[in-house]
Amino acid sequence: MMFSLNQWTTRHWPLPDLAAGCAAAGVAGVGLWREPVAEHGTARTAKLVRDHGLAVTSLCRGGFFQEPDALDDNRRAVEEAAALGAPVLVLVSGGLPPGSRDLDGARSRVADALAALAPYAGEHGVRLAIEPLHPMYCSDRCVVSTLAQALDLAAPLPPEQVGVVIDTYHLWWDPAAWDGIARAGAEDRLALFQVADWVTPLPEGVLTGRGMLGDGCVDLRRFRTAVEATGYTGPVEAEIFNDELWTMPGPKALNLTLTRYKSHVL
Amino acid sequence: MMFSLNQWTTRHWPLPDLAAGCAAAGVAGVGLWREPVAEHGTARTAKLVRDHGLAVTSLCRGGFFQEPDALDDNRRAVEEAAALGAPVLVLVSGGLPPGSRDLDGARSRVADALAALAPYAGEHGVRLAIEPLHPMYCSDRCVVSTLAQALDLAAPLPPEQVGVVIDTYHLWWDPAAWDGIARAGAEDRLALFQVADWVTPLPEGVLTGRGMLGDGCVDLRRFRTAVEATGYTGPVEAEIFNDELWTMPGPKALNLTLTRYKSHVL
Repeated sequence: MMFSLNQWTTRHWPLPDLAAGCAAAGVAGVGLWREPVAEHGTARTAKLVRDHGLAVTSLCRGGFFQEPDALDDNRRAVEEAAALGAPVLVLVSGGLPPGSRDLDGARSRVADALAALAPYAGEHGVRLAIEPLHPMYCSDRCVVSTLAQALDLAAPLPPEQVGVVIDTYHLWWDPAAWDGIARAGAEDRLALFQVADWVTPLPEGVLTGRGMLGDGCVDLRRFRTAVEATGYTGPVEAEIFNDELWTMPGPKALNLTLTRYKSHVL
Repeated sequence: MMFSLNQWTTRHWPLPDLAAGCAAAGVAGVGLWREPVAEHGTARTAKLVRDHGLAVTSLCRGGFFQEPDALDDNRRAVEEAAALGAPVLVLVSGGLPPGSRDLDGARSRVADALAALAPYAGEHGVRLAIEPLHPMYCSDRCVVSTLAQALDLAAPLPPEQVGVVIDTYHLWWDPAAWDGIARAGAEDRLALFQVADWVTPLPEGVLTGRGMLGDGCVDLRRFRTAVEATGYTGPVEAEIFNDELWTMPGPKALNLTLTRYKSHVL
């Protein structure tokens, strides 16, 4: 497996510096986010990463299927991923519409959206990757809360068009995660592996409190081993949303992440 | 089903006032907490609630099995529940010991503790009720994260000694919750039903952000109906940890809870 820096780990590092910094550190892959890519320009970003010999391991993110214009927006995200040469578009499937209590309805809307988008993704050589998010995000960010659910949602669609993301931060608590990883491998659905650690107390809003690798209670090596055992040879993206990390200069944050990756994931 | 006020919903309401206030409002049951009961005195509390014609529907809480003196402390909790006439002792099973990443080990420690405590509870006429807590509490409060896990933990032990708690706040996100409720009924494990709503954003530490009934996205009536369909005739405890609610005078908080209970749970 190859280390890849997800851009949100070094959120405030400008793209040109990030590309140069990754190349300098011997990092061969980056996971990019749509907003900074749009700011820098998609074609310009594609050239930038190519010029630095970097692979774009994923684009974050499509999804948010509760929004009225979700399908159009997701088609654009597929096109952007294709333009960047990203093989994977990460999907954060969205929460409940305002005032709704219909969780089953929201989940079946995700299934419908996937069916509508999968062929489009296939035509563009992009794989949609359903990311189960921690259940604490169920109401407002992602009604797909477990790996089993994500695999069930993927099941009706071709594996080359739809896969799943294994993110240790979201799945570590789930006793069914290990069976899920094996199943993802057996069903050829493992599109992306991301790592972050779990630390408490959680901050207000619970978005920016992910732990640096090794700082928390996730058995990261067990996850890496389980993912590897499926035959997965793709990237390991470090994706750590953390206020403290975001105050560090990019090179320092990358260096810390790499050091911890070697001692806690490999 | 009978409405019961869990004491933590009106956390700062002194016990004598709470007992009088519940009686005045026609509330027939209260769920009590060990700390305020200890402060008031266990025997004195038992007399107080008896004098007001109140049933003690549960005592919160035992558990925290990662602590070195957990078994002794839980035996004391069983004795306190018996002294109060509480048929149920709620168990919050505890998180990971400091520095540990061994989640499987923590979960098997819960199984061992239950096996050790169940006969003692049985001798005292108290039922241990394993409460699955939302997965966001997995590391620091409760490694039992789903209803299925709680039922699996209860399975080896006699149903009259060990049951489970269904709390809407903890379970609402889980697509397996409905099957779990039916299973809890079929296996005679449904010891207690608690209600609170889910609202976001979550506050720092995620402990005191439960929603007043009807303010959030939980389909409370679906839960009540599912629990009722198992044949459960026990209490419905409103247990809402909420900073804003805690600033209200007890009678006002109780009145609001009752009003919302009638319109969103019944």
